[in-house]
Amino acid sequence: MVKNKIFIGVIGGGDCSDEVYKLAEQVGERIAKAGAVLVCGGLGGVMEAACKGAKKEDGTTIGILPGIDKSQANSYIDFPILTGLGEGRNLLVIRNSDVVIALPGEYGTLSEIGFCLKLGKPIIGLFTWDVSEAIIKAKNAEEAVKIALSKVNKDGG
Amino acid sequence: MVKNKIFIGVIGGGDCSDEVYKLAEQVGERIAKAGAVLVCGGLGGVMEAACKGAKKEDGTTIGILPGIDKSQANSYIDFPILTGLGEGRNLLVIRNSDVVIALPGEYGTLSEIGFCLKLGKPIIGLFTWDVSEAIIKAKNAEEAVKIALSKVNKDGG
Amino acid sequence: MVKNKIFIGVIGGGDCSDEVYKLAEQVGERIAKAGAVLVCGGLGGVMEAACKGAKKEDGTTIGILPGIDKSQANSYIDFPILTGLGEGRNLLVIRNSDVVIALPGEYGTLSEIGFCLKLGKPIIGLFTWDVSEAIIKAKNAEEAVKIALSKVNKDGG
Amino acid sequence: MVKNKIFIGVIGGGDCSDEVYKLAEQVGERIAKAGAVLVCGGLGGVMEAACKGAKKEDGTTIGILPGIDKSQANSYIDFPILTGLGEGRNLLVIRNSDVVIALPGEYGTLSEIGFCLKLGKPIIGLFTWDVSEAIIKAKNAEEAVKIALSKVNKDGG
Repeated sequence: MVKNKIFIGVIGGGDCSDEVYKLAEQVGERIAKAGAVLVCGGLGGVMEAACKGAKKEDGTTIGILPGIDKSQANSYIDFPILTGLGEGRNLLVIRNSDVVIALPGEYGTLSEIGFCLKLGKPIIGLFTWDVSEAIIKAKNAEEAVKIALSKVNKDGG
Repeated sequence: MVKNKIFIGVIGGGDCSDEVYKLAEQVGERIAKAGAVLVCGGLGGVMEAACKGAKKEDGTTIGILPGIDKSQANSYIDFPILTGLGEGRNLLVIRNSDVVIALPGEYGTLSEIGFCLKLGKPIIGLFTWDVSEAIIKAKNAEEAVKIALSKVNKDGG
Repeated sequence: MVKNKIFIGVIGGGDCSDEVYKLAEQVGERIAKAGAVLVCGGLGGVMEAACKGAKKEDGTTIGILPGIDKSQANSYIDFPILTGLGEGRNLLVIRNSDVVIALPGEYGTLSEIGFCLKLGKPIIGLFTWDVSEAIIKAKNAEEAVKIALSKVNKDGG
Repeated sequence: MVKNKIFIGVIGGGDCSDEVYKLAEQVGERIAKAGAVLVCGGLGGVMEAACKGAKKEDGTTIGILPGIDKSQANSYIDFPILTGLGEGRNLLVIRNSDVVIALPGEYGTLSEIGFCLKLGKPIIGLFTWDVSEAIIKAKNAEEAVKIALSKVNKDGG
């Protein structure tokens, strides 16, 4: 059952450098290989890259969109979820993730990190906002996904 | 691509009679057979029955839940979407549907019918609230899904 | 304390006839005279008329807006509350009302009536959607507000 | 007209030290003296202290609450706004503020700072999260409110 799969959130900038794009793609690939579902905000940059990576490995991607128009979703989203909540959808991204991997991003990403820490969900940081010791730092995509999986299992996600 | 599939919303009571349960199951079966994705509020009664029907035919089911706990979802939901919006998730059910099939329900269903009509989305009624001529009445599950599909194609869904 | 005042919701069409506008104005006047706070969706038609009436009698008006721009609010709103939830703000109008008076309106009003009945809040109908026996019918503004006040006191609002 | 007043958001921890409580109280006093409306999340700690200060000076306080129960609001809230959005109300606090003063807080405050910066609203920091150069640092309550007022006037709030 899909429902029993682990849902891993990937958060990060809607715009990003080529380097970060590549990193996000690797994160997506690893998530799909692990059989987990990728949850994100559905737009460009880190979100698009992660979904692209996941689809390479035949993974499943959910994009929780700010608006009410599916065409907002990046090309690698399987399930665009329309919210019409604007930035308020950031909280829904976190609520729908058993564990979160945070890449570099701007202030929207910061709000998501805030919510993630507030809700006490495990969060793995890949060169992202360094705002709390509760963010577990990883060195690369492989390690980030490995820690994410271990956290869900250990902490009961 | 899943994204390009038609998303059909099924709304109706969280509790329902055996007769309505059976009807909702048939609606779900027909939706799955047509290759469309079933969207609903994720709980019991009509929602559960429709998802049960869809899974019989190997369909895909999305449950947009009021709370923040996946275990709220009925057993036939593939993708539980957690909102934490309470009854506010009713609007998200409608926003995520290209077309809606309304079965018998109580006041929550009435609020969804109100939103559906407000947003100008096509809505097919199966023995539901008779509040507008814009609700296209169907006689059975087969006809309801047939009309739903035709509406999305004709109206551009 | 304002907080301990009764909050009365007024719902109805964003467009309305002169006759309904006048009726809504009278409802607003009566609410203000009774010392209650008027809550509404903050836009035109019935919402504007009710607020206009309330301000004639030096009442207090709260407008819970769909968008994120205060200038959306009608001229008689004291406290514009920005939600950015679109039609989702309809639920917040109901949540913030101890009791609701429903005037003629379209489908948005219908969704609000649905939520009001769902949440079990007392609702008084003034020539509005006739969808439930739980809606207490009133003949005029005076009677509507009188019943509203009695319901809050009796039912503990 | 209340509507044309400046709405100043005060954000910070739901629990706080005596020192921070005192600082928040001073911020509230200054806001009220300036004739601005105080907007906050309506609960305890910094929120309560700021409202207490505002009421000392006969100011007006709005509390945008996470739940659906007015009794959640601290004793100094004039207008409790019920959202039922949980942590999602953090975004509404920011949307309803023309300018924000941020005091020490935990991760909920961090999410609000993220939203504030994302929406490009002016933000004044009083010993809060040091996450952006866009946060204008103030040394005390008087200076914070003074800068806040100047920002709304200059930037058109």
